Formats: sequence, structure tokens, C-alpha cells
Amino acid sequence: MLVSTRLDASDARLLVEAARGKATEIGVPMCIAVADESGSLVAFERMDGGKVHSIQVALDKAFTAASARRPTSELALAAQPGSPLFGINAAVGGRFSIVGGGVPVFVDGAVVGAVGVSSGTPEQDAACAGAAVDAFARRVSEA
Amino acid sequence: MLVSTRLDASDARLLVEAARGKATEIGVPMCIAVADESGSLVAFERMDGGKVHSIQVALDKAFTAASARRPTSELALAAQPGSPLFGINAAVGGRFSIVGGGVPVFVDGAVVGAVGVSSGTPEQDAACAGAAVDAFARRVSEA
Amino acid sequence: MLVSTRLDASDARLLVEAARGKATEIGVPMCIAVADESGSLVAFERMDGGKVHSIQVALDKAFTAASARRPTSELALAAQPGSPLFGINAAVGGRFSIVGGGVPVFVDGAVVGAVGVSSGTPEQDAACAGAAVDAFARRVSEA
Amino acid sequence: MLVSTRLDASDARLLVEAARGKATEIGVPMCIAVADESGSLVAFERMDGGKVHSIQVALDKAFTAASARRPTSELALAAQPGSPLFGINAAVGGRFSIVGGGVPVFVDGAVVGAVGVSSGTPEQDAACAGAAVDAFARRVSEA
Repeated sequence: MLVSTRLDASDARLLVEAARGKATEIGVPMCIAVADESGSLVAFERMDGGKVHSIQVALDKAFTAASARRPTSELALAAQPGSPLFGINAAVGGRFSIVGGGVPVFVDGAVVGAVGVSSGTPEQDAACAGAAVDAFARRVSEA
Repeated sequence: MLVSTRLDASDARLLVEAARGKATEIGVPMCIAVADESGSLVAFERMDGGKVHSIQVALDKAFTAASARRPTSELALAAQPGSPLFGINAAVGGRFSIVGGGVPVFVDGAVVGAVGVSSGTPEQDAACAGAAVDAFARRVSEA
Repeated sequence: MLVSTRLDASDARLLVEAARGKATEIGVPMCIAVADESGSLVAFERMDGGKVHSIQVALDKAFTAASARRPTSELALAAQPGSPLFGINAAVGGRFSIVGGGVPVFVDGAVVGAVGVSSGTPEQDAACAGAAVDAFARRVSEA
Repeated sequence: MLVSTRLDASDARLLVEAARGKATEIGVPMCIAVADESGSLVAFERMDGGKVHSIQVALDKAFTAASARRPTSELALAAQPGSPLFGINAAVGGRFSIVGGGVPVFVDGAVVGAVGVSSGTPEQDAACAGAAVDAFARRVSEA
């Protein structure tokens, strides 16, 4: 049988708070989602001013990064015309996101979940998701 | 033009925390969602042990209670066989929930959002959603 | 080949206005949809205060009444437990509505479209849809 | 709590009429949708001859422009291969439109809704949506 390690609700709150902190710093209200290693939602927050369509996009970025075990910004490159994953963004009912802003969370080399952020540019989204993952890594290394 | 008042992210956090407190008290880990008055998600938390299908059910209970402006437990009664809303539960892609656990939040007589809780019995779910709404009402009356 | 007669945009506006008039008279702000005989949307209006989930429900009642060529209130009866259409409300992705408020428009014995109304009780919804259909029949008979 | 201002049904009718006027002027029958600032439909009209698939496209252009707070023609540029939003058009169940013809409505710097038009070329669609937004701006400035 398989044993999996995944983000718990407390981990997810830390990730949301760190993403929110970065979003506040750069002045862009975001939708922030945290999924576990099975891609299932653990936590979500739409900051005041976060966009309505970004609710679903943030959920899907977290889902995709957790399941694909790669940042969605890398998937963007692999899904360009002529590249192997071209067209994958329509998969899973359109939930497979190839827009930057989804970042997996690794512990001891294994994916335990992911953060998905949406409402800014993909670069801003990825910066907030990355800040969350970095903050979590620091907590894990301190524990 | 229309002017509407809705829950902000801070309000939603208070509601999630109050629902989590009640869920902890009764010993049932829950999925907890908060929607604004347009039914759009503001915050979500899956407590450790919350059920996977309950993620979507909690989102849908919050959506439904906000939009229908009634607790989903009331809709359960109105949608029984032979009653006027029978069959409504398949509407909006199955998102219209008629299972107890969705409770609207009123301020000055207008709906500003709703809480949706799922993973326990509908009665347990409704108790947690109700505790959240009560806690919010106390904060509003103290403000 | 087939030739079909269907509601045009002008007909649809008359139907929306008549439904709105009845809704105003009974004091319930409604979502009002008009579909043509193929079930495709021709016109829609959400009155101020109409419910968000009722947008889709109104569209689906109009679609269903046009396609089934019967009022959705009749379908409600035929879809009760033990009756022949039991379960049909989940069909077409949940778009097949068995809640009162969808009424077909007949001209010379053929369906040319339908009106779907939602936000009140099914009886209120059906009263508004019926008022619209009656107003249209009067215009046709006067022409 | 948050306070938002959004288009009401009367505003939406003016927008539809202005878009219809422009469509009549250029001789292209259109599907015309108006959404509020949360992306929820307020009004719709399919002119005689408007295309059937354009019903959904018009709804989705209005939803997208309201939520993204940008014309969909700008999103078209940002979503080209190699650009940051490439692939976003499959998001939200395919509802995120990157085809010109969706234009947000701003009042005092905030989005209050959007118009989505479809059936012609994206340039024709955008011209009709733009004419509607201009007509609304004139009414607001005269009020």
C-alpha cells in the first residue's frame, strides 16, 4: 500500500498568509489556493479586489502544479505550438493550467501539495506563489 | 446602478474560524466555504480529515444559500417529492444544494454572503454554519 | 426540408416586458428568459434583485419548455417518484428543468418558443411566464 | 465589508439598445450580453440572424471583460503563443474569452460590468460593444 505525505490545514494557512503578504507587498489583490498532493483543495482566500474568474484559475493552478509536480510556468513552455504538450490546457475540462502562478511544494523530494495564485500578471502570480513556498520551506527547515 | 454590500476577506476568515471552532467542539472535521452575496467564493478551509467530495459540496452550499437567500435545510423541505422545488437540486450543473449546511449571512436585512459546511451529517454541518453566522452577527452588533 | 416558425427579437422583447410587468405587480424581482423553438436563447433580463442562481434556472426553464413543448409545471408532475419521467431533471447536464416557471409559446398549434422565469416560488414564476404568453397571444390575435 | 456598484437592469437595457443600434448600422445581426461587475448576466438579446454559438460566446465575453477588467481584444494579444497568458482561453470551463468583443464598463475608475458582443468579426463585435459603452458613458456624464 501507499503512504502519502501531504499539506495539512495548518500548513495551508501558512502558505495562504505568506502569499497574501507578498501580494500586499506588491499591491495586487490575489486569489490564493492551496491543494494537497492529490490535487484536492485545502485552503482558499480571495483578497479584497481579487478577480472573480481568478477564483477558478487559482484552484486550477494549484491542482495542476500538485498533480504535474511542476510549476505551471514550466508547463507554459512545454505547451507552446510545436512543443510536446501543445493543447494540454484544454484537458480535464480546462482545469489543466499552463499559465504561471502554480508552484508545487516539495518536502524531501516529494510533492506534498501546491499553491496557485491568480489575479495579477503570471509573473506576479508566480512571485506570490513562490514566496509562499519559500516561507513554507523555511518553516520545515526550522522544525 | 445598484449598490451592494458583501463580505470581505476579513469577514470570511472570522466565519471560517468560528465554523472550525464549532467543528472542533463536536469532533467532526469539516470542509468550510464562505461565498459573497453574488455566490462567488471568498474563503475555504478543509480541516484535517474533511472529506474530498465535501470540498465541492461546501462550495455549493455556500453558493446556494447566498443566492437563494435561505438556509439549504429549508430548501431540503421545499424540494421533497410532491413539493414545489422537487428536482431543483440538479440545477446549475448540480450546484444547487438542497442539503442542510448552507446558511446565509444577513446584515440590515440584506444577504451579504453565506457559509457552507460539509463532511458531517446535515445537522452537524448546519450547526457549524450556524455557529459561524452567529459569531459574525455578534461582531457586527459590537462594531 | 423543414420550415420552422420561431419567436424573433421583437417578440422576445414583448414577452420579457410582459413578464416584467407581472413580476412588478406581484413585487418579486425575476430573472426572465425567452428561447426560440430550438431552445436557443433570444432574450434575457435579470430585474434588480433577481437571484444569481436563477439566471441559469430561467434559461433552463425556457430551454426545457420550448423543447419538451409543455410547461415545466406539468413535467414536475410527470417526474415524481414512481412516475415515468422520474430522474429526468439531471438530463442534459442538469438543464432539463422540472420546476414550474417555464411555459411554451404556441402559434397555430406549434411551439415557436418559450418563456422561463425564476426567483420567486414556482407558482409566482409560472404566473409571470403565463402572463407573458397571454400578452403575446393577444398581440398575435390582434395582428 | 465591501461595497460595490454595478449595472442595474435599466443600465443594461441602454447598453443592449446602443449595441443593437451599432449592429444595425453596420448590417450585422449580433448576440449582445451585459454582465454586472461580478460577471453575472443582467441582459441579453439575440438579434434576428444572430448566430447560435454566439449566444454563449457573447455571454462569455461579457463575463470575461467584467472579471478581467480589460477588453477581450487586449487579452487576445496577451494570450498569443509565447505570451504570458497563452492557454488561458480554456480556463473556467472555456468561458474565459480572448476574442475581441468584450468591453468593460467603468464608472469613476471601477468596473461596474461589461458588454459582450458576438456574431461578426471580432472587430465588428468590438465596435458594437464599444458603441454601447460610449453611449453609457454619455448618459452617466449627463446625469
